[in-house]
Amino acid sequence: MLDRIRATFESYGFASIETPSVEELEVLLAKGETDKEIYTIERLQADETAGGESRLGLHYDLTVPFARYVAQHFNDLVFPFKRYQMQRVWRGERPQAGRFREFTQCDVDVIGIDNLAVTFDAELAAVAMQALDAIGVSGVTLHISNRKILNGFLMGLGLVEATDRVSVIRAIDAIAKVGADETEAVICLALPGLPNNREIAAKSVLLASIVGPNGSLTERVSALGVEHEELRVGLAELEEVLRHLKFLGTANAVADLSIARGFDYYTGTVYEGRFDDNPGFGSIVAGGRYDDLAGAFINKKLPGVGISIGFSRLFAKLLADKAIDTSKRSPADLLIILPSEERREDMLVKAQALRKRGFKVETYHAPQKIGKQIGYAEKKGIPFVWFPPFDDAGSDEVKDMSSGAQTPADVETWKP
Amino acid sequence: MLDRIRATFESYGFASIETPSVEELEVLLAKGETDKEIYTIERLQADETAGGESRLGLHYDLTVPFARYVAQHFNDLVFPFKRYQMQRVWRGERPQAGRFREFTQCDVDVIGIDNLAVTFDAELAAVAMQALDAIGVSGVTLHISNRKILNGFLMGLGLVEATDRVSVIRAIDAIAKVGADETEAVICLALPGLPNNREIAAKSVLLASIVGPNGSLTERVSALGVEHEELRVGLAELEEVLRHLKFLGTANAVADLSIARGFDYYTGTVYEGRFDDNPGFGSIVAGGRYDDLAGAFINKKLPGVGISIGFSRLFAKLLADKAIDTSKRSPADLLIILPSEERREDMLVKAQALRKRGFKVETYHAPQKIGKQIGYAEKKGIPFVWFPPFDDAGSDEVKDMSSGAQTPADVETWKP
Repeated sequence: MLDRIRATFESYGFASIETPSVEELEVLLAKGETDKEIYTIERLQADETAGGESRLGLHYDLTVPFARYVAQHFNDLVFPFKRYQMQRVWRGERPQAGRFREFTQCDVDVIGIDNLAVTFDAELAAVAMQALDAIGVSGVTLHISNRKILNGFLMGLGLVEATDRVSVIRAIDAIAKVGADETEAVICLALPGLPNNREIAAKSVLLASIVGPNGSLTERVSALGVEHEELRVGLAELEEVLRHLKFLGTANAVADLSIARGFDYYTGTVYEGRFDDNPGFGSIVAGGRYDDLAGAFINKKLPGVGISIGFSRLFAKLLADKAIDTSKRSPADLLIILPSEERREDMLVKAQALRKRGFKVETYHAPQKIGKQIGYAEKKGIPFVWFPPFDDAGSDEVKDMSSGAQTPADVETWKP
Repeated sequence: MLDRIRATFESYGFASIETPSVEELEVLLAKGETDKEIYTIERLQADETAGGESRLGLHYDLTVPFARYVAQHFNDLVFPFKRYQMQRVWRGERPQAGRFREFTQCDVDVIGIDNLAVTFDAELAAVAMQALDAIGVSGVTLHISNRKILNGFLMGLGLVEATDRVSVIRAIDAIAKVGADETEAVICLALPGLPNNREIAAKSVLLASIVGPNGSLTERVSALGVEHEELRVGLAELEEVLRHLKFLGTANAVADLSIARGFDYYTGTVYEGRFDDNPGFGSIVAGGRYDDLAGAFINKKLPGVGISIGFSRLFAKLLADKAIDTSKRSPADLLIILPSEERREDMLVKAQALRKRGFKVETYHAPQKIGKQIGYAEKKGIPFVWFPPFDDAGSDEVKDMSSGAQTPADVETWKP
């Protein structure tokens, strides 16, 4: 599955990078207080008197190491810099179903200097959905919005304080879980001093209910009677992203103005991919556009857009749903029987010939009873068993373990 | 490179397993005092009052996690159990050239219950050498011996104490580095109370000097005038391994009785692969046969044989030797030019058609000057640039960036 995701990322020209699992603690904490639980590491036999070494921690995501990497290698990179990164990350949270302390993330991002075309926001959405398709995950829709829409909308409603807008955005973020009524109430409570808090709450919830195809978006937002330049820009960007997704043939993506990604530092496009028949499972893929990747490490403005596939969560779900076949205990296509000790050279030479042709081959290690050798293939789920001749006059045969059919075969021409 | 190693392991029917990076500290220390520097991990925001959690550490090799895995999943495994494991490991040693604190190991092992045919010792050697071949590493010879040879030889010389024999084995282990004379002196000093310590030292060094093809081995050892049943068994095993390696077509393997792997707990076959023209670099691959994998975790006798490719060390050497081409900054085969904003749909549709055919394709993001777009391909090392038509009447052309030749092309038929 990871290979297929990787192949999809590379088919769009994203380059692979890997960074150490360990970063200096000050790098991990560079963006200020993090809500991610960090694991620190220490040598068991640390020499207390040595001192002077930086404190180290395991990375809790792939964004911070990527930012450090871009800052460190800035002069060697060609921008727009397109990279993917598939690694384990660690968080010291309480483990539960779908939440692990060690898990694999598949991140794909593109970074520009000073600015980055919004067409990349469409490319990132397309590559993520195509990666899901490549691993046979269907029934997922990518819900897309743009932070500027809700933010501009709230400014249009006179919400001048950024902290107030953040409170509303965070409340909207939970709308899929808690429903429209409770979200509206939460927004009202979050803006106690404002005379029009009821209007803001009601209209925000109406805005968040707008889901659907491109054409009607601007009209449906206009009907709410709120105007603001940032709102207009956000809608235009979202429409451009959707238009490009059509060009790219990405069908399962939809505008959804309830998408806020409230706890992340996105500034434009935001995405969330969810199972259509199981939205409560949460996001399978998520990401968005950010203004500045590596401001903590380098004095350059590096805007980017990225999306992340939560591979371990997805894999655990597929395993639980029995959508992954776990019956095969060997990658082998074939087991070659050893008829007698004298025929070992014949068996090994044939195995190498089949391997050279690209087949995966196990050879049985001892001239035991044929039934026992076949039983080994059966227990390991190896689909074909090869019977070499018992003497130089004999010929080769292959047994198809599923049908039981046994047919003559030649190492240079056999096919499953 | 990792993909190719993996494909080689799977071509012999080894199954992939991955284990967590983190194990309980008592698992990591189960084999008693370790000379490996372990990193422990701890939550930065650990709740001091919680307590009760096991202490955790990062694995320092892939053998201990494998042993824990086999013990834990014993009833689900089919034996002989053939697995490979390619993961990062961590050691808190002082970093230096070719020594990292975080590095990737590629381990391949086969485990039996109670006993395991010596033919697997040949299979493991073959798969390791074939993996090196698959990643283009040549000029490596696998030096093979069997611990029973040196151990039996020393018993035949009357060295009854196991600790004395270990001292000699450890001294022999350094012979390639320090030379025969110093090794002989070290052995004498290590056996001060023994009247025949000079004879033992001299003959051990003579034994260790035996290197060469199969046929002459037993004769050359016999010429030293030492007899012991374990010595006889060790020589027979080594000859069987070499004989099977011939059947498997593994040319670059040689008997070398100086191979001792002195600090590891091997009991039979021992291997070390070294560069022929740079033996001082140390072992690229190493491994051997062990009597009991998981005795610390399960009351079963599980003998095995394994070999490990020190991938990070090897990679660092290849990089330093400029044997790896690092000029390509994108995996893309092609960059498609964007002639104008109006032609974007045409560009994106063509990109998807080429990707469907298996090509890796970048599309340029903005209708900038053609020279700038070509410059991007040049800077990223993308070998071909695709020029879509500027209007519906035009046709597609592809420029080969190395030759400069520009020829008509069609998305359904183009080949590099």
